[in-house]
Amino acid sequence: MNYSETISRDLAAVREKRPLVHNITNFVVMNLTANALLALGASPIMAHAIEELEDLIRIASALVLNIGTLDAAWIASMEKAAVDASKRGIPIVLDPVGAGASRFRTATALALIHEGRPAIVRGNASEIMALDGAEGATKGVDSTQGSDAAEDAARSLARSAQCVVVVSGAVDFLTDGTAAVRLSGGSPLAPLVSGMGCTASALLGAFAAVAPSPFDAAAAGMGVMKTAAELAAAKASGPGAFQVHFLDALHSLCPADLSSRLKIGEAPAL
Amino acid sequence: MNYSETISRDLAAVREKRPLVHNITNFVVMNLTANALLALGASPIMAHAIEELEDLIRIASALVLNIGTLDAAWIASMEKAAVDASKRGIPIVLDPVGAGASRFRTATALALIHEGRPAIVRGNASEIMALDGAEGATKGVDSTQGSDAAEDAARSLARSAQCVVVVSGAVDFLTDGTAAVRLSGGSPLAPLVSGMGCTASALLGAFAAVAPSPFDAAAAGMGVMKTAAELAAAKASGPGAFQVHFLDALHSLCPADLSSRLKIGEAPAL
Amino acid sequence: MNYSETISRDLAAVREKRPLVHNITNFVVMNLTANALLALGASPIMAHAIEELEDLIRIASALVLNIGTLDAAWIASMEKAAVDASKRGIPIVLDPVGAGASRFRTATALALIHEGRPAIVRGNASEIMALDGAEGATKGVDSTQGSDAAEDAARSLARSAQCVVVVSGAVDFLTDGTAAVRLSGGSPLAPLVSGMGCTASALLGAFAAVAPSPFDAAAAGMGVMKTAAELAAAKASGPGAFQVHFLDALHSLCPADLSSRLKIGEAPAL
Repeated sequence: MNYSETISRDLAAVREKRPLVHNITNFVVMNLTANALLALGASPIMAHAIEELEDLIRIASALVLNIGTLDAAWIASMEKAAVDASKRGIPIVLDPVGAGASRFRTATALALIHEGRPAIVRGNASEIMALDGAEGATKGVDSTQGSDAAEDAARSLARSAQCVVVVSGAVDFLTDGTAAVRLSGGSPLAPLVSGMGCTASALLGAFAAVAPSPFDAAAAGMGVMKTAAELAAAKASGPGAFQVHFLDALHSLCPADLSSRLKIGEAPAL
Repeated sequence: MNYSETISRDLAAVREKRPLVHNITNFVVMNLTANALLALGASPIMAHAIEELEDLIRIASALVLNIGTLDAAWIASMEKAAVDASKRGIPIVLDPVGAGASRFRTATALALIHEGRPAIVRGNASEIMALDGAEGATKGVDSTQGSDAAEDAARSLARSAQCVVVVSGAVDFLTDGTAAVRLSGGSPLAPLVSGMGCTASALLGAFAAVAPSPFDAAAAGMGVMKTAAELAAAKASGPGAFQVHFLDALHSLCPADLSSRLKIGEAPAL
Repeated sequence: MNYSETISRDLAAVREKRPLVHNITNFVVMNLTANALLALGASPIMAHAIEELEDLIRIASALVLNIGTLDAAWIASMEKAAVDASKRGIPIVLDPVGAGASRFRTATALALIHEGRPAIVRGNASEIMALDGAEGATKGVDSTQGSDAAEDAARSLARSAQCVVVVSGAVDFLTDGTAAVRLSGGSPLAPLVSGMGCTASALLGAFAAVAPSPFDAAAAGMGVMKTAAELAAAKASGPGAFQVHFLDALHSLCPADLSSRLKIGEAPAL
């Protein structure tokens, strides 16, 4: 099967199984990511109280950790959830928002990688380079690095953390440390909507719950994001309408959309 | 008067009096519920600091408590607000999000019922059954039970908690333990928007501030939700556009919309 | 240059420099204000952890403090950020949401003015009057005072706090204590969208990062808000669509929009 077919298969699985995706995420994007998971066909829950994590992780099919508005109390919740999910074999997606912008974020993201052994880490170029110990200066939560420059860091991080790493940007790069693909397409309006990267991470959680491998899940999540963004951009003249149409596109997305629009290619293995 | 007339009367009262609805609610839905209250004609405030609850409850006309992203600090705020509002005779609406999914949520919701004596408790079938001690397994925050199966639990909870209980779903069920009504209509797009149940609870707060009785308030809130959802669905092809049109419909809703669309009927009293 | 020209100049500067605006703001509006900053052309970050504020303030071009859902922990973060930003000469915008509605809010806002010496304070009439010690009773977070009645309070507060004070309402009033202008226009749909005042404060932060003076920044921020609101209202029939079109209008706003729509005039200096 080609990627268009595997993504269609995994999208159908999300819609059929409606996996419960547990999110401990940031305040800015909670609403959008919940709506994106619902539009895709998954079932989101947002919960962070230490007292209930054990009960809730037991019924979850994936865990998404996002450090966008982290503080000490939320980090403790993320760490407990990561350990619980790891013990149960529930796939974890980590979104290291702003890693590199503060030492606190970089250290928290690295601790969560160590404790939770995530299946997928998704960030922008600056964030992935910061996690790999590179010198990329991060400016806030928006990347200051081109996606190309981060490919080496992504491969290196994927090997050391034994996970799939996704660098999202104008061109997305996905790697498990050996195999790698690049996805292009999408829309320049996407980075003008707050939380589209976080939304990608949330969708990766839904796909990680059903796909045969984290690599398949990463390709499905990013492929769906790019395709839905293109469909939305075709109808929207600005970022406000784009967000509305993006949710509608997630809901209506079908195999024909993927087969006609997906721009994906293998990157040379190193 | 029939329900269409009482709901129109109570909607006019909300728009005239603009009741201040104090919300201690979850992070995911704060923005949507504030917008829904504004679109309806009410005045929302979201505040949770223990230090200011006394000042703020003094000027509130209703209190909405929602445990969607609860933790120990927020529970303490909800409990203080519940006690303060109860003392002042300000109607309380409780949304027991995810009751049954964790013991922590079930216990918190029951404590708030005990301490605050809410006028209205609104949940989905799983949540209401969990509060009534039934065996309904809750999957995350989305109901796994049909609305019908929860009607007995709703009547039982309404009697023991001496309040109106609303079970929302494809068909809403409202009861004070004796009288009961069912509302149908709405749209299948509504459950694909995060926080529509929470939005219903917020609107119930606005109506509880002005309606002659909690039962009237419950009928008005749920009737307006169903009607606005139908109006929105007539214009929307997906959940993104649906949310936009839903807010517009709340703003423009008029008696003719209610009289032409409301599908409500008495359920047999037990 | 007239105001239309200075605002166009400052808008171009925001789009060219993409200033990083650090927000410690309330849960209700985080998403909307982040989206508004992105649509305008700025780069938002929302972060509140004490542990990382020093790192983040170092890379910020402006700091926006908003007490809409304050509590003790967040106040501590706001105070540290205010002191750090003040030391570094980074302009601070304060939004004293609900000042006057609780003594806690009034005291917090006054403390932040004292500690941070903000460049701009923006509130509604009730809030500004509360900060100036006036008798205006605040009802929740929506103003109960006409903008006119607050002009004296604004001038007085601007002098005592040595900052620019903006009273927003149907007519906005801007003053540095001596010079003053009034802006009309906008749309009656704007107050039906939660967080439009907070959005104004966020945009003031972006303009404060690039404009020659806080007064210019205030005129630019409020002028852009009024103009984008008019453009949005021309396309929207309700508050849901208005919010969508407002973000699109921020994105597409051009000098011709400002020159044709801006309704601004000097108020007599006192």
